Amino acid sequence: MKEYAFNMHKLPVGVLGASGYAGQELCALADRHPHFELVFAAAHSRAGESLRLPGREIVMVSADSVALGDASVIFSALPHGASASWVIKAQQSGAKVVDLSADLRPGQPEVAIPDLDAPYGLPELNRDAIRTAQVVANPGCYPTATLLGLLPLVTRELLLPGAPVVVDAASGVTGAGNAPRPDLLFGEVTEDFRAYGVGNSHRHLYEMRATLDACGADLDLLFTPHLLPVARGILATITVTLREPLTDPLALFRTHYAVEPFVEIANAPPRLREVQHRNVARIFVTPIAHARRPMLQIFVAIDNLVKGAAGQAIQNANLLCDFDETAGLPL
Amino acid sequence: MKEYAFNMHKLPVGVLGASGYAGQELCALADRHPHFELVFAAAHSRAGESLRLPGREIVMVSADSVALGDASVIFSALPHGASASWVIKAQQSGAKVVDLSADLRPGQPEVAIPDLDAPYGLPELNRDAIRTAQVVANPGCYPTATLLGLLPLVTRELLLPGAPVVVDAASGVTGAGNAPRPDLLFGEVTEDFRAYGVGNSHRHLYEMRATLDACGADLDLLFTPHLLPVARGILATITVTLREPLTDPLALFRTHYAVEPFVEIANAPPRLREVQHRNVARIFVTPIAHARRPMLQIFVAIDNLVKGAAGQAIQNANLLCDFDETAGLPL
Amino acid sequence: MKEYAFNMHKLPVGVLGASGYAGQELCALADRHPHFELVFAAAHSRAGESLRLPGREIVMVSADSVALGDASVIFSALPHGASASWVIKAQQSGAKVVDLSADLRPGQPEVAIPDLDAPYGLPELNRDAIRTAQVVANPGCYPTATLLGLLPLVTRELLLPGAPVVVDAASGVTGAGNAPRPDLLFGEVTEDFRAYGVGNSHRHLYEMRATLDACGADLDLLFTPHLLPVARGILATITVTLREPLTDPLALFRTHYAVEPFVEIANAPPRLREVQHRNVARIFVTPIAHARRPMLQIFVAIDNLVKGAAGQAIQNANLLCDFDETAGLPL
Amino acid sequence: MKEYAFNMHKLPVGVLGASGYAGQELCALADRHPHFELVFAAAHSRAGESLRLPGREIVMVSADSVALGDASVIFSALPHGASASWVIKAQQSGAKVVDLSADLRPGQPEVAIPDLDAPYGLPELNRDAIRTAQVVANPGCYPTATLLGLLPLVTRELLLPGAPVVVDAASGVTGAGNAPRPDLLFGEVTEDFRAYGVGNSHRHLYEMRATLDACGADLDLLFTPHLLPVARGILATITVTLREPLTDPLALFRTHYAVEPFVEIANAPPRLREVQHRNVARIFVTPIAHARRPMLQIFVAIDNLVKGAAGQAIQNANLLCDFDETAGLPL
Repeated sequence: MKEYAFNMHKLPVGVLGASGYAGQELCALADRHPHFELVFAAAHSRAGESLRLPGREIVMVSADSVALGDASVIFSALPHGASASWVIKAQQSGAKVVDLSADLRPGQPEVAIPDLDAPYGLPELNRDAIRTAQVVANPGCYPTATLLGLLPLVTRELLLPGAPVVVDAASGVTGAGNAPRPDLLFGEVTEDFRAYGVGNSHRHLYEMRATLDACGADLDLLFTPHLLPVARGILATITVTLREPLTDPLALFRTHYAVEPFVEIANAPPRLREVQHRNVARIFVTPIAHARRPMLQIFVAIDNLVKGAAGQAIQNANLLCDFDETAGLPL
Repeated sequence: MKEYAFNMHKLPVGVLGASGYAGQELCALADRHPHFELVFAAAHSRAGESLRLPGREIVMVSADSVALGDASVIFSALPHGASASWVIKAQQSGAKVVDLSADLRPGQPEVAIPDLDAPYGLPELNRDAIRTAQVVANPGCYPTATLLGLLPLVTRELLLPGAPVVVDAASGVTGAGNAPRPDLLFGEVTEDFRAYGVGNSHRHLYEMRATLDACGADLDLLFTPHLLPVARGILATITVTLREPLTDPLALFRTHYAVEPFVEIANAPPRLREVQHRNVARIFVTPIAHARRPMLQIFVAIDNLVKGAAGQAIQNANLLCDFDETAGLPL
Repeated sequence: MKEYAFNMHKLPVGVLGASGYAGQELCALADRHPHFELVFAAAHSRAGESLRLPGREIVMVSADSVALGDASVIFSALPHGASASWVIKAQQSGAKVVDLSADLRPGQPEVAIPDLDAPYGLPELNRDAIRTAQVVANPGCYPTATLLGLLPLVTRELLLPGAPVVVDAASGVTGAGNAPRPDLLFGEVTEDFRAYGVGNSHRHLYEMRATLDACGADLDLLFTPHLLPVARGILATITVTLREPLTDPLALFRTHYAVEPFVEIANAPPRLREVQHRNVARIFVTPIAHARRPMLQIFVAIDNLVKGAAGQAIQNANLLCDFDETAGLPL
Repeated sequence: MKEYAFNMHKLPVGVLGASGYAGQELCALADRHPHFELVFAAAHSRAGESLRLPGREIVMVSADSVALGDASVIFSALPHGASASWVIKAQQSGAKVVDLSADLRPGQPEVAIPDLDAPYGLPELNRDAIRTAQVVANPGCYPTATLLGLLPLVTRELLLPGAPVVVDAASGVTGAGNAPRPDLLFGEVTEDFRAYGVGNSHRHLYEMRATLDACGADLDLLFTPHLLPVARGILATITVTLREPLTDPLALFRTHYAVEPFVEIANAPPRLREVQHRNVARIFVTPIAHARRPMLQIFVAIDNLVKGAAGQAIQNANLLCDFDETAGLPL
């Protein structure tokens, strides 16, 4: 195994929470990034174990043993609740920080971090604020898909005020992490499909609602996640009611995302396999026939570990560091 | 391979279209039925090939070579469009007929069969009409799941008139049949998920709308199917708006289906594996929080080949023959 | 949930270790058995939880709270090492016992149970001894497949003495149980395949060697298991060297197993889906071309939870109780 | 869709047979290669259809409409039997050619191409011959895995002459191509596993035997492929008999492949997911206990579409063009 070495031409970065699926993906992306050098990969219970990256292995270290100041950018993929205090330590060490946990995201009911101004790291919405930030709150996977599907309509005030927005989304199992849980064993998930977080109770609703509210949306967001027998990928199927019929919703979406490097507008419903291992959201939109009100369906596919987590974190770090936003990211 | 033999104590039945997934399932169920004897399994292009049933193999014959009059009950699992003319022949031979195709189902835009009175074979809605019929139109798989989820509310006029009913449903691949299609190859479906029939265009909408209209419902049914990387099973996630809040929707569903042998009301969202290989619909219902109007989510899981096709066909045949409705059906 | 009730026409049976995959399968089979009544399903850590059987749910109880004497037959699906002491208790309570653990199987290096005469419960080899036994050691899943593939050759002394017998077998994940292990998560197993227990080190080798030795075989058994991304099923691919060429090995296997209700000789390599949920071993045998010595390949497929565990246990219990050997078993 | 444009700094390459799985993988790799520019992707029946590459789409053209002379390197991923004549045309146009079909591989019984000297494109065996060739016969997927596992032993004459070498290998479904076949539908492959080409009859045996013979090996190669319910990946489990015991086979393999960029010697049995989407063979070797002769097991994992097809073709093209052998290849 290769020793860590400081590379004069690259910015040193570190990962906290490297042993989870998002942390592993982050380490792999950081390790291949043209401008980043991975200087530590910290994990708590699995410190000392090796982590396979494409082409090499590294040894995870204890977060407590890490010199946070060695890194210019620190990614925290620690669990919700455990992350915020490490983000503060990382920031105090002088690093810029991308937090993949929910702790700093808008609308969280339980977490209070005084005096920490962390913009919500959805570059397609907040690019300017991210560029000048010290800390970024990387969005959740479902919110990334849902918000990218709604923003072209919400920002133009095209949705009927007060109408329900029905988001039925399905995710691969890596969205649930790699801690051993009996209900996530292969023998339980294969050939199965089920809803969870039903009745509009999933914790990702907080950041979705807060973000939509900040955009001035007045709608009832109804979100239901489902567990797919696939490793990675999210598909969100979104049903909305419009104020007025839209002549060409696909053209509107194309216009909205014309300059976005990581949003693809498709000519047909997107498939998970079109986005797996890529940092893109692939979107299709179509009018709904046989409805008395003007309605649309929006389909958004992302890789929950890439655009829904680690890839978007690298995208945010690129913005924080004033690099090309697409550097090191799989198209 | 065993020769067909007429059994004095059993009613002779035949299957047309035995080579498809639904036809195979029908043959297997008929072969184990306590009161039926499978006397022919006809297939067109695959006549002469053997069909494996649990514990034995049979040889499929050409439909043209079959003496329809040998069977007291004939099941047609022929493709849509090709079935109706065989149903008429079968009926004229004196047999009772269960048609698994869409040809005779209500609301079909293109099929016209004069003077054929075939009740829609959803026993939980139409049991009395089925008992006295000569021909039954077996429901589609998605309509079975959707209608069983809506009927307790529709028949009580609890839904808000004019409001959209959003049905996002997902099916295993056997719903698409076993004709070789490039997009259904294992290499294309594994680790994938996608919507199809988008924009409210799936042909199952006809029978769902016609059935709901006949129940007096006034609603906009929005139905979107998705393709799951599983062999069998359908999960329908249904979002509805109520006229008034319901105190205990689960109790209402329990009451509605109290005497139904093939409907289970669950205490949690149903999983596909809870219904696979069983002739049941498993249903959960819950209020939706954070919505300004009273809304419910209903989750319905069925096996698309059993309660969604062959099992329900046997259930209908049991009613046609005045047998115990549950005879020969896997609980 | 239904109360346990003693059924005058059925024999009361109990299951120890009901919460594992084999235990659950046993409870399901016992619950539908025409001559058995399941009177307890005991589990240690999961006592108090409910267990879904087809059509109903039961509550698992603590093994310590169970009156072993209430059952005429007790099945132990407890873990290896923990089972033997319970088997003795069960036997002392007067029950006949089928032990699904390895504890009493032949050749085990570490377990010593004095004065307990438990024949190896492979009915196709030991039927007479099982009929008159008090306790039966139910075979492991891999040994069941391997031995059924070798017995027709071994018992006729057709294998070349001293030659290696190469058994490369692959199993679905339920063979590893349902305790949560990180390497058995869906996200780790899907799209993967790997060998384990390599270098001829798997613990199932003990009982295979002891059984083959007892048959007088003189061979080097080389056994390598692999983990398949499927829920259930084992396929063993066995390569053997013969003393002399065999004219028609398929006919020899057909003759050997002619009267066996649970062995099928196929005309083509067996598939897992041909045996899933069935208590059968499906076998194909073919000469190997382009080898200078006469060699055969034998392919054996079983369901690891049925013929490889719970189904075979019921088969043994049927023999212990002098019932029809096939009673309650899925063909 | 982007127009093809000749790039002054890149070598123009073309793909014949672009619509199959290997052809698609080739187009994707060529499109991202630092020194290649994909100037045509030809397909017969699917000419005119678009092909999705990561980040863009291209339109496949008819092979008959292609100016072969436009390409400096032509890859043929045409079917066996159809490829050889195109290889000759391509060569006559002045291009260097990598043929992914079996047509030019050693030992083929039916194909005769006079005066075409095409070395077998396994760089780990034939690097020097490939560098100076005009045409290369790219190895099959199973032979790549099998030969890389055997070469360290064969070239050192460590195997017992005349002894059988048992290769039980399993492949994902993309190895069978993407032409629609009923037995490759998702509904048939999921939860299944089966052997095929049994009795030592698979056509890959020709090239394996011819290559091993050319190395001076005297052994009986017994090869049995199996079909895995995964999209991509091959695992070969190889059992061999040695002349003499080997003290440290792992060290021997490490030495043999020390300078190979695309062979990894692992410390544990390799998993498919360790090699998917990578151009590597990952190998583990271990002595076999409890055998009277000295025996070894070798486990080799590759991605059948990368190191087993398109990646190795790019590797060969890099050698033909005197580029860095690893250029454009995923480690």
